Amino acid sequence: MVLTSKNNPLVKETAALKEKKGRKETGMFLVEGWKMAAECVKSGFELDRVFVAESYMDEPPVDELKVVRVSDDVFRFLSDEKSPQGILCRVKIPKRVLEKPQGKCLFLDGVSDPGNVGTIIRTANAAGYNEIYLTKECADPYAPKCVRASMSGIFFTKLHFGERAEILSVLGETPIVVADMGGENVFTFDPPKSFALVIGNEANGVSEDVFRAATHTVKIPMRATQESLNAAVSAGIIMYVLGRGEFIK
Amino acid sequence: MVLTSKNNPLVKETAALKEKKGRKETGMFLVEGWKMAAECVKSGFELDRVFVAESYMDEPPVDELKVVRVSDDVFRFLSDEKSPQGILCRVKIPKRVLEKPQGKCLFLDGVSDPGNVGTIIRTANAAGYNEIYLTKECADPYAPKCVRASMSGIFFTKLHFGERAEILSVLGETPIVVADMGGENVFTFDPPKSFALVIGNEANGVSEDVFRAATHTVKIPMRATQESLNAAVSAGIIMYVLGRGEFIK
Repeated sequence: MVLTSKNNPLVKETAALKEKKGRKETGMFLVEGWKMAAECVKSGFELDRVFVAESYMDEPPVDELKVVRVSDDVFRFLSDEKSPQGILCRVKIPKRVLEKPQGKCLFLDGVSDPGNVGTIIRTANAAGYNEIYLTKECADPYAPKCVRASMSGIFFTKLHFGERAEILSVLGETPIVVADMGGENVFTFDPPKSFALVIGNEANGVSEDVFRAATHTVKIPMRATQESLNAAVSAGIIMYVLGRGEFIK
Repeated sequence: MVLTSKNNPLVKETAALKEKKGRKETGMFLVEGWKMAAECVKSGFELDRVFVAESYMDEPPVDELKVVRVSDDVFRFLSDEKSPQGILCRVKIPKRVLEKPQGKCLFLDGVSDPGNVGTIIRTANAAGYNEIYLTKECADPYAPKCVRASMSGIFFTKLHFGERAEILSVLGETPIVVADMGGENVFTFDPPKSFALVIGNEANGVSEDVFRAATHTVKIPMRATQESLNAAVSAGIIMYVLGRGEFIK
């Protein structure tokens, strides 16, 4: 059977996952494209349904009971891509309690651009920052644009959400390293063995509360004609420079 | 006098600068926003005209003979921004001959996303890679999206354009360091004093010709669950890690 109507309840409910409200109500998010679907299966995330466009002939790499065939028109309605690949998964958002990190971790304090949040998650996974704490002010990492930019990093990192104060409270005695223009040169800074690296909002930097809780501040030195770096680029540089010990053995 | 018609020749010619064809025909590009305009003036780039929206009351920081007042409607027509600030400059693209670099430099071999090209120029300026060579396959750095992402880096770096073979030829004996998954760990690599760092296409990496010319290859080590990094992020990490000597003294 092929679903052909945008008014079908399952189709409507799934399209609503493009918006935060829909994700909040159902506890699910969307994962698009062949490669991302395969990584999602590998990661152990729980698939709810897999929507496949009628004209897409390959068999998806999942339990066929979960597959829903839809017309190409309905698929375009569900998709958030400019060039849809014909496969889109509805995936359960993992439930996690806010808990203490096991090693070095990342703390996003109001990073608001969805592309930046996704790109930072991608780099965090590559650089071994498994646990990522996000304040409520951050862009939602389960938004289609974030998921796409994370390039499957979203499946292999643990995301924790909370108010600033709650996150600071679970971090407890963990040293807090804040990325800040006025900080110590990151290339000469000697990081503690374990720490939470804080990246602030693109325009305003970290919040006052978090800045007060900082045990260290680090900066990326720059030539005078450039005032700042892109948030995802500076997060990437600092994550790798502070964590390079993991990769030099 | 306020220009109110989109058919005014000056308005039409200026709107055409949003596209590559228009920039090629006139040798000019667009710079939008108050801050970017001020940086442009500071950099010594040659301003041709400054368009100011009628409802924008501040005086622009330029020779008033160059100011053209336009209706808000015409301004929105010229603008490439979602929230236009009411100031847009028409700026001459500097004429440069393809020449040998003076120090460490960057070589973009087919980087095709405009946001990546702009972000890389921003980081290159911050990290002291003054000279940037771009193959014809790269996104045009004078496109509005690139200029915006460069955050004025475009005014303080020297951009050189050429075919791959021409660029390799002017680089001559300069060591060529290619960012490549199969390369040496960038954190233990000891860079030559001067070099050209090559960043390849987002999907396909560097071209065969450039790969053959490489004297060194470097990679950013990654955990197994992440296959790759965003091109602007990896360019940023490698530029800083190889050039950190400049910032540690």
